[in-house]
Amino acid sequence: SRGQVATVEEFHERVARALPGDTIVLANGVWQDAELLFEANGTEEKPIVLSVEEKGKVSLEGKSNLRIAGNHLVVEGLVFKNGFTPTNEVISFRKDSETLANNCRLTETVIDRYNNPERHETDTWVAIYGKNNRVDHNHLAGKNTKGVTMIVRLNSKESQENNHLIDHNYFGHRPNLGSNGGETLRIGTSHYSMTNSKTLVESNYFDRCNGEHEIISNKSNQNTYKYNTFYECTGTLTMRHGNETLVDGNVFIGNNKPSTGGIRVINGQQTVINNYGIGLTGYRFRGAFVIMNGVPNSPINRYFQVEDAKVANNTFIDCDHVQLCAGSDAERSAVPINSIVADNIFYNEKKDDVFTVYDDISGIDFENNIISPNIKPIAEGFVKKALDLKKNEMGLLVPADESLKVGAKISDKIATKENTGVSWYSKADWSVPLSSGKTIQVEAGLNSLFDAAKNSEPGDILELTSEGPYNNTKAIAVTHPLTVKGATGTKPVVLFEKKSLFDIENGGALRLEGLRFDGENAPDDNGNSVISTSKYSMNQNYKLFVENCDFVNLDVNHSFDVIRVYKNTFADTVSVKNSHFEAVTGNVMAFDKETDDIGIYNVEYVILKNNSFKNIGGAALRLYRGGTDESTFGPFLEIDHSVFDNVGHDKRNKYDAAISLYGVQEIDIKNNIFKDSKAINMHLVVGEPIVKIRNNALSNSEKLKVTGDQKYSVENQWQLPPKFS
Amino acid sequence: SRGQVATVEEFHERVARALPGDTIVLANGVWQDAELLFEANGTEEKPIVLSVEEKGKVSLEGKSNLRIAGNHLVVEGLVFKNGFTPTNEVISFRKDSETLANNCRLTETVIDRYNNPERHETDTWVAIYGKNNRVDHNHLAGKNTKGVTMIVRLNSKESQENNHLIDHNYFGHRPNLGSNGGETLRIGTSHYSMTNSKTLVESNYFDRCNGEHEIISNKSNQNTYKYNTFYECTGTLTMRHGNETLVDGNVFIGNNKPSTGGIRVINGQQTVINNYGIGLTGYRFRGAFVIMNGVPNSPINRYFQVEDAKVANNTFIDCDHVQLCAGSDAERSAVPINSIVADNIFYNEKKDDVFTVYDDISGIDFENNIISPNIKPIAEGFVKKALDLKKNEMGLLVPADESLKVGAKISDKIATKENTGVSWYSKADWSVPLSSGKTIQVEAGLNSLFDAAKNSEPGDILELTSEGPYNNTKAIAVTHPLTVKGATGTKPVVLFEKKSLFDIENGGALRLEGLRFDGENAPDDNGNSVISTSKYSMNQNYKLFVENCDFVNLDVNHSFDVIRVYKNTFADTVSVKNSHFEAVTGNVMAFDKETDDIGIYNVEYVILKNNSFKNIGGAALRLYRGGTDESTFGPFLEIDHSVFDNVGHDKRNKYDAAISLYGVQEIDIKNNIFKDSKAINMHLVVGEPIVKIRNNALSNSEKLKVTGDQKYSVENQWQLPPKFS
Ligand SMILES: [Ca+2]
Ligand SMILES: [Ca+2]
Repeated sequence: SRGQVATVEEFHERVARALPGDTIVLANGVWQDAELLFEANGTEEKPIVLSVEEKGKVSLEGKSNLRIAGNHLVVEGLVFKNGFTPTNEVISFRKDSETLANNCRLTETVIDRYNNPERHETDTWVAIYGKNNRVDHNHLAGKNTKGVTMIVRLNSKESQENNHLIDHNYFGHRPNLGSNGGETLRIGTSHYSMTNSKTLVESNYFDRCNGEHEIISNKSNQNTYKYNTFYECTGTLTMRHGNETLVDGNVFIGNNKPSTGGIRVINGQQTVINNYGIGLTGYRFRGAFVIMNGVPNSPINRYFQVEDAKVANNTFIDCDHVQLCAGSDAERSAVPINSIVADNIFYNEKKDDVFTVYDDISGIDFENNIISPNIKPIAEGFVKKALDLKKNEMGLLVPADESLKVGAKISDKIATKENTGVSWYSKADWSVPLSSGKTIQVEAGLNSLFDAAKNSEPGDILELTSEGPYNNTKAIAVTHPLTVKGATGTKPVVLFEKKSLFDIENGGALRLEGLRFDGENAPDDNGNSVISTSKYSMNQNYKLFVENCDFVNLDVNHSFDVIRVYKNTFADTVSVKNSHFEAVTGNVMAFDKETDDIGIYNVEYVILKNNSFKNIGGAALRLYRGGTDESTFGPFLEIDHSVFDNVGHDKRNKYDAAISLYGVQEIDIKNNIFKDSKAINMHLVVGEPIVKIRNNALSNSEKLKVTGDQKYSVENQWQLPPKFS
Repeated sequence: SRGQVATVEEFHERVARALPGDTIVLANGVWQDAELLFEANGTEEKPIVLSVEEKGKVSLEGKSNLRIAGNHLVVEGLVFKNGFTPTNEVISFRKDSETLANNCRLTETVIDRYNNPERHETDTWVAIYGKNNRVDHNHLAGKNTKGVTMIVRLNSKESQENNHLIDHNYFGHRPNLGSNGGETLRIGTSHYSMTNSKTLVESNYFDRCNGEHEIISNKSNQNTYKYNTFYECTGTLTMRHGNETLVDGNVFIGNNKPSTGGIRVINGQQTVINNYGIGLTGYRFRGAFVIMNGVPNSPINRYFQVEDAKVANNTFIDCDHVQLCAGSDAERSAVPINSIVADNIFYNEKKDDVFTVYDDISGIDFENNIISPNIKPIAEGFVKKALDLKKNEMGLLVPADESLKVGAKISDKIATKENTGVSWYSKADWSVPLSSGKTIQVEAGLNSLFDAAKNSEPGDILELTSEGPYNNTKAIAVTHPLTVKGATGTKPVVLFEKKSLFDIENGGALRLEGLRFDGENAPDDNGNSVISTSKYSMNQNYKLFVENCDFVNLDVNHSFDVIRVYKNTFADTVSVKNSHFEAVTGNVMAFDKETDDIGIYNVEYVILKNNSFKNIGGAALRLYRGGTDESTFGPFLEIDHSVFDNVGHDKRNKYDAAISLYGVQEIDIKNNIFKDSKAINMHLVVGEPIVKIRNNALSNSEKLKVTGDQKYSVENQWQLPPKFS
């Protein structure tokens, strides 16, 4: 029978008496704080179905979740949004550790930005236990917080050799988490990685799944990945643990976006065939194709040696990095053995050094691989050949010669945005770019800027039309992307009386152009700042751009910073250009609130160009990443063409430096002048930090101090007294 | 005319055309986010009045505030509650720095717990600018956040020589802020402390104003404090800056509560006469009566020498500490001069050493002071005399001999709870004690404890009736005082699957008795804890009591703590007794999240008695207070009769100690055993920390390490191998 229910109590009452063939229908509307337990037993012919009155008109919100337990159950048509689960799993294929789901199906279900406000509180959206379950045609988009989006658990015998099928799911945008725990799909854990899983992952679409560098973390034996599409994902399909994986017929589209990757091979008996990659720019563990070194007699949670790998008939067009023996170091010294790389195409006419070889590759047999004529072969078995490329019906460049036996053929079972997920829920992007909205003119006056910001809409531009001053007795909460700029030709003065002027709240982003921020009205209190993040967790990443601004007189009391961030906040980018900072008692910016030393940090890209810093008590920049975790590759730092004049000498400057860097993974500091300033201090930690210090002039300033034992390069460090006119 | 208005727009429209003699009436109801500017000009005979339809039925809530500007205005009957001002001042006697209020009156207005959620975000409730203003019969209770409750500003000529009258106000409970900035009344700032203020503060009632050790901070010349009552206030009326203060006829009632104080004298020409104190226990800067040393040629923001002080006819009954030349150190070396202390009574039959003399008191002329016969005189001018004491009509002990010319007479103008504030708003205490509610029996079951806690009311007791296990898949939000205990004779097992079991949220307090907390179901993730504070700012202090509990198997991953606190949270007390901790990878408790080094810390009293700590990777305790601020006297620590067995050896233990103390101001560690453990590390910083380390036995453990240059005492540190049977 088909019975409709309208409350959680009715639902559980109806489930308790459900018979095979029954369908339980959730009534249209919002189900608030609905924790559903769907425990029942159908039959193969007559499953019990949990459905909805109308697809897209039933949503589970607030603190809702679903447990599925029993046999032959089907769940379809749910939408989870506007909330988060109070437990560890939004949808769980079990009631508890005793009662699992088998032969069940989760289909056409949506989980949309159903995120815990706490960025680093772990949860999982779909946790699959039991056996023979199918998870298909679901839409899982916008997971912003720590925890894998979908997990296959193997933590008891009843969940092993499971033969699950995961197909035609749409895995929507997952932003950079800036931490381990941002995987989109994981099968197994290191603890159960010797176990056979036998899960088939087929025809799923991964759309900008950028949580961390493992899009998929395979951690068990005998899984298969076929016909999946990875669109602009900044990571790889990683065979992290477990053997006998088949990776066949997948497509990786990078569109030359930074850090986009392909496939990473670890462990034994891995087969990688018929995959296609294009425009992948990632390097290190995020290369288009990566074979890692292993650890001799590896503990179960480290890296097993690659052996018996078969890598054949793959095509990589315009991909920048193929990394062989990646991760080679004192611990990871076991090179790949008994492996073959044959009949592949590596084609990139713009880059000659596509291959990086970190260790002995004699254990890999290279045969009949085509490379573009410009590429340097690294061994026998590479054939230079100019290919005619054409666009196929998907718009991907493929060899015009269809009779070519080398490289991949793209199956028509390949996942697309259209044939995955559900038809009745939008896959459109929800983010609004900065400066994409209307321009609002703002005249000077008490709180006129505050009021304009309060009334603005996402993407709007506030244009200050006079020289000001624009005084604000209230802090401006930046709750959406907002641009504030001076009208052409003026640099309006902005004053403020609260502890900070701009508070970037969750969902906010800020661009400042052509303004002069003067701290003279700030409260006589320590710890002021011009720009602050939320003091609370932000589960959405933010951006901050500062262009052609002055920040002056931030000296009413001690510890007055320009930019102040808090724990559990993360910026994709902080960019400051053509700006001037003068008379600041605190730090210009300190990104160092993630102090748990587990690889978390506050900003991915820090870009400082053409700025001048004068009479700064604290540091111009502190950037901190603690711990030795290898799941992320930031922060990235560039400092170019800047002047540091009397920076860092305040006795409260606990960094004892003008620029203090700890664990920063990529550093490029060039063409700067340091006068009467403290030093650049760097402590280098993780992996292989890429550090270049070039063309800097020091006058009456401390010299570069480096600790940690990583390599770095310094060129042209002059001792020159600058002349300022 | 009398005109009623119902919206902010109507109000401003009505104000714009107000004439002398008009009354503008706010309609009954809640005024949400009402920012009112009352700018008008009445006359002395015909003021313009802002009133309400019915007193007690009009409230300004959310983000509301009021500015008063102009002449001869009266504001009466407002209530601010359920919100906080988005600006720096709730009620301001000015429009902006140009337009002040003069000859205005604020009366019968209530501000009740109108607190910013951010504990350390500064604001002021009443800021008085201009001249000749009266602030009377207001009720200002429950200011929990940083910032002085009421300020008289002297920051321009127009606000000096102001002749303000502050009278008959009820200053309700202000909890310990644990930081500077918790004053209840301040007149002036150091910057304007050479300026004459001429403010009269008369007949006000200060009810448990415990924000910090300055209840009143006098910072300008020629102010008068008369007939005020200070009830159980943990601080003093402090003449911090400015000369020629008259402190006359005030009453200080300590009721033997800890840290209650009286009057502190600094600067020149201060007159302290006819004041009465009873049952004041405070010491150091919180003594019943304190005369400080000054700094020779003091900068304006330091301590001026006491000269020409007249201290006469005051009575101190059962007060524990009179401190002379307090604060004497290398900097504060200028002793009091040309001063007289005469005709006072210092009577305390229970304490012989009431007087502490820190430096040369020859500049004070003592004459005809009566002391109880047990007290040791410190100079000439003290007469031992047994007095008959009787209770007066206020219940205060006074000499039975009414003809006595020595000591204070209490005026009938003295403030009482009844003759201050308003009659139509309750002065009752709003806090609910732990374990004051009903007992609810809870049976074992999945989330039965979670559900019971969710349905509990403030003060309730949850009694777990079976041995359990009580498994919780959700974290328990402790949003009010809650007790959880095992039924007599059992020690129920409590398990949990989220990152923490109990989250003490703002307004919460927790008592745990007779339970066994087992971490075996906790997530395989770093950073778990059993008990956590809110991750967000808590503007209400909390309490945590643990009695007879076990905490075991907190080792599923690294950094598993027992108690974890966050920045911007503050406990009055954390007490752990008769409890056992075993197999913990992180810290048992680390109170060290206030790292700005401005004298803020996380817990006032830490009491650990009769506990055992076994196999603890991190520290059993870390307690941190950074900076050299002298506004607070905590944290206080007592560790007694505890066993530390293999504590502190994990490589992630960044404190490198079993007990790590930094800046703790009072330490008493006695009768403990340390076996195979790291050391106690102490760094001593502020003022005169009181440190006693007594009767501890160390076996195969590191020795006490002390840094900082303060004195401390160690007695009986044995090297004894304990025998555990
Ligand atoms: Ca990972
Ligand atoms: Ca103070």
